[in-house]
Amino acid sequence: MTFEAMWRDLHSVGRSASSGGYFRQPWTSAESELRAWFTEAALARGLELETDGMGNQIGWWRPADPTTQVVEEGAPRRTPVVEEGAPRPSRNPGVLTGSHLDSVLDGGAYDGPLGVVSALAAIDVLRARGFEPARPIGVSVFTEEEGSRFGLACLGSRLVTGASTWESARGRRDRDGVFLGDAVEAAGLDPSKGLLSLDDVGCFVELHVEQGRDLVDRDVAVGVASEIWPHGRYRFDFAGEANHAGTTRMEDRRDPMLTYATTALAANEQARLAGQRATFGRLEVAPNGTNAVPSRVTAWLDARCASDDALAQLVEAISRQGAERASRDGTQLTVTAESVSGSVAFDPDLARDLASIGDWPIIPTQAGHDAGILSAAGIPTAMLFVRNPTGISHSPDEFAETADCLAGVDALADTLAKLAS
Amino acid sequence: MTFEAMWRDLHSVGRSASSGGYFRQPWTSAESELRAWFTEAALARGLELETDGMGNQIGWWRPADPTTQVVEEGAPRRTPVVEEGAPRPSRNPGVLTGSHLDSVLDGGAYDGPLGVVSALAAIDVLRARGFEPARPIGVSVFTEEEGSRFGLACLGSRLVTGASTWESARGRRDRDGVFLGDAVEAAGLDPSKGLLSLDDVGCFVELHVEQGRDLVDRDVAVGVASEIWPHGRYRFDFAGEANHAGTTRMEDRRDPMLTYATTALAANEQARLAGQRATFGRLEVAPNGTNAVPSRVTAWLDARCASDDALAQLVEAISRQGAERASRDGTQLTVTAESVSGSVAFDPDLARDLASIGDWPIIPTQAGHDAGILSAAGIPTAMLFVRNPTGISHSPDEFAETADCLAGVDALADTLAKLAS
Repeated sequence: MTFEAMWRDLHSVGRSASSGGYFRQPWTSAESELRAWFTEAALARGLELETDGMGNQIGWWRPADPTTQVVEEGAPRRTPVVEEGAPRPSRNPGVLTGSHLDSVLDGGAYDGPLGVVSALAAIDVLRARGFEPARPIGVSVFTEEEGSRFGLACLGSRLVTGASTWESARGRRDRDGVFLGDAVEAAGLDPSKGLLSLDDVGCFVELHVEQGRDLVDRDVAVGVASEIWPHGRYRFDFAGEANHAGTTRMEDRRDPMLTYATTALAANEQARLAGQRATFGRLEVAPNGTNAVPSRVTAWLDARCASDDALAQLVEAISRQGAERASRDGTQLTVTAESVSGSVAFDPDLARDLASIGDWPIIPTQAGHDAGILSAAGIPTAMLFVRNPTGISHSPDEFAETADCLAGVDALADTLAKLAS
Repeated sequence: MTFEAMWRDLHSVGRSASSGGYFRQPWTSAESELRAWFTEAALARGLELETDGMGNQIGWWRPADPTTQVVEEGAPRRTPVVEEGAPRPSRNPGVLTGSHLDSVLDGGAYDGPLGVVSALAAIDVLRARGFEPARPIGVSVFTEEEGSRFGLACLGSRLVTGASTWESARGRRDRDGVFLGDAVEAAGLDPSKGLLSLDDVGCFVELHVEQGRDLVDRDVAVGVASEIWPHGRYRFDFAGEANHAGTTRMEDRRDPMLTYATTALAANEQARLAGQRATFGRLEVAPNGTNAVPSRVTAWLDARCASDDALAQLVEAISRQGAERASRDGTQLTVTAESVSGSVAFDPDLARDLASIGDWPIIPTQAGHDAGILSAAGIPTAMLFVRNPTGISHSPDEFAETADCLAGVDALADTLAKLAS
């Protein structure tokens, strides 16, 4: 099955007819369908499939068993020596590639799926070339990479690497109040089955659509990542006093919407001034009635900066301006860091090695990825980016040209060939 | 059953355990329970109950039938003369009082129910005084007064008076997409039964908790309304472009949240300057994800002014400032008037008559009421207000002292006695 055929398979899964965007939240029917699709695609390629209790998956292409290798007549037959009861040593660490299949709310087709489809297609390319891997090559799919349902990005890879624990995560709730543990079970999975082991993974390469326009400006189809910017999510709780929208004089109000509005504008201005990123994209208002001054506005700040210090300073500046306005409005502002990820520098030697394959540029990214989690867990990690002509991502308008996607598949095949030889 | 006992009956219906506020949206189980309560209270008083296909109700206290009156021996017996087949003329128009039982989202206990409970209690007071009405006295409950579910305030009284038609209203949807017609049927009502007739209503008096602090400043428990300010609800649609919150440079965004924030602050400033009211209390964000620049923000403006011209100027000024910001943000703003009610001057002779009963002050209000709809339909209408010590309304903190509520019951009883004699 070609890249294009796989891409067509996925086209309609979790797609909104009205916006054309994707709603592939984890442990929903859309994601279950994607998991079934991956299972079928992996088994059709004869990959050895592992699925853990959360729905994380790896399909392994194992090197031919050395015990079954054709050996020259008269030569001593090599037999693996493993002590009884001893843990199986990782004598031949694997090369892992892949990405994720979940999406943000109303997201695009490429963020995630492009890395998974390209990984499967790269295996097809390598086999068509007659390539025989000396190391195992795995294609992985990690769940809830976007954090769009339970608010913690890269949840699947965090659990697998131990960056988060199941005990701390299982009590998280989605917007409807459903517990993570219940959602996973409702999807037909069994959390008590435990998690994938990455003990046999020697390195990880994630291919991803670019989410900016760096490659457009450089006029190349493929790039290699240098680092991920530090990234934080912060909950801003603005508390005021509900009241009648008609009868309450403006000067008698304690309206948290005004404090929020000022804070949202401050976030934009501060990020512009500093050349960083700050976004209020999610909001909850209570009671959210047309004729009531709100009692409460809860807003989530997404902030990303070139350094950990810059991130702390940006959030501090935004919080200070919000608090100043709160004192004028008679409201209260409480800021809670929900997740903060420090900067991730990918393995520089690996990046240089890969870049040399196709003279690809090495560029930073402001987006979080499972690759950042695996890198932080000590696994040598790299990323390949595929050009995005508009730079638009997390949107139904996210796009990549098919020619660039196929160039990405070839680049990934070359990369895997180099790493698994 | 005393005022206090009725008040206790209603205490827990539709009440949120966390906020202490009320969620009594029309055609929900909470409102059905309130309708059953009113039915029981009316029947327990021997009132003649009418319930229409939408759930609007009136319980009538009819004067004793003149044909059964004791007449002096030898006096000519009065027999009503009605031509066969002719419509029954309204020879003795009734005095209607009452209010509503639905609430805003997370509303208070008093807005609405105080008028219904006080009306029933006033009948008890009149009967205890031995009063015999010469005209029918009706206690009414109109549905969806707050417009909190289907977005059109005073829906029940609008339909009954013909200010809105069922054909135009039935296609309205609530936040979950449920059609009005389906919601009414699901509540066990039968819209095909038709609506109450107000043909026999000679005047209407609605008692209501004050939603400001005018009576506090005047140090009196009861007041009479002069007028309702003009009131409009406007939907502001801010359209931008969804994008990745991390990778999209600030200068490449078309973020509708910024346009909204500027517009919300402009609304507050314009209303302050003009001594009017403007509130953004309801908001919907799409896709509402933490790591996505929104594609769309929809916000509802509630605006109220002392005159129709002032209202138009206020909304124009807010829209203009929003549009200016939209041109800087690369977003689009569309403003749609969802409902605009002109000013309502209550019957001045009736207001003077009632005010003279207890030397009550005559004050304006900025809140819409069913009384405004009945007044606009040509029914002489008045309102009585009961002091609200904080002025807070549409909030769990809405409150009135019991002594003031009882003063309101007495004032309403005196009013009904005067009008129904």
